Amino acid sequence: MNLSAQEARARFEQSPSAVLGTVDTAGQPHLVPVTYVLSDEEHVYIAVDAKPKRSTNLRRLQNIEANPLVSLLVNEYSDNWDQLWWARADGTAVVSGFGDLAEGLLARFQSRYPWYRANPPESLVIDICVTRWSGWAFAG
Amino acid sequence: MNLSAQEARARFEQSPSAVLGTVDTAGQPHLVPVTYVLSDEEHVYIAVDAKPKRSTNLRRLQNIEANPLVSLLVNEYSDNWDQLWWARADGTAVVSGFGDLAEGLLARFQSRYPWYRANPPESLVIDICVTRWSGWAFAG
Repeated sequence: MNLSAQEARARFEQSPSAVLGTVDTAGQPHLVPVTYVLSDEEHVYIAVDAKPKRSTNLRRLQNIEANPLVSLLVNEYSDNWDQLWWARADGTAVVSGFGDLAEGLLARFQSRYPWYRANPPESLVIDICVTRWSGWAFAG
Repeated sequence: MNLSAQEARARFEQSPSAVLGTVDTAGQPHLVPVTYVLSDEEHVYIAVDAKPKRSTNLRRLQNIEANPLVSLLVNEYSDNWDQLWWARADGTAVVSGFGDLAEGLLARFQSRYPWYRANPPESLVIDICVTRWSGWAFAG
């Protein structure tokens, strides 16, 4: 059964990690696991916590600069296929400086991921404006 | 640390599920969780087990027809970030009839996934020729 947009977004709230898909100029998709926080109804933020010099070389950032269309997927595998589900967020991404974003974002990251308490993200953030939440579950 | 191609492929052998990324003609990436089997050093097969009529409408198949470049990601999240890892297979996909493929493929699917013993895939298969295995692990 298809999940409602509301239910798909709720699965993102509950999941700790997603897969981010971007596309390079040759049309090659690029996938990488990411952590994230949700803000209002529309935005998903992904911290880029490598060193700034290295960060700017990351393929996900180069791809977003050339093509802002992205997709995020959360899912959980189970050997019992009647437990399978996934949720997806399609949207448009921009890369911003972490400090340019709304106050409170750092706190959200640190609340959701203990790692960030000792290692605060501070260079860049991928800001995704979600245009479509969708999802599927084998059973309701 | 980066994983060798051999190690990345081994992680695919060990994982039950991956995320498949394809791209539509507008440059929008499309992500969906998939099950798969590996064959020789280069190929990954994904069964499409919906009804044939519906299958041909699946976005992943439409995307591959327009752009054969795909990416597969396996990973496992852990709250202990020093346990994080991912492995990726980038390649080129074609969609074939299940019956056109090498004998033994059905047995591989059924050996790896008990579900397929009662529900044998028989319509279509996505055949990915992997051009690059890569991966990363926090620790060795």
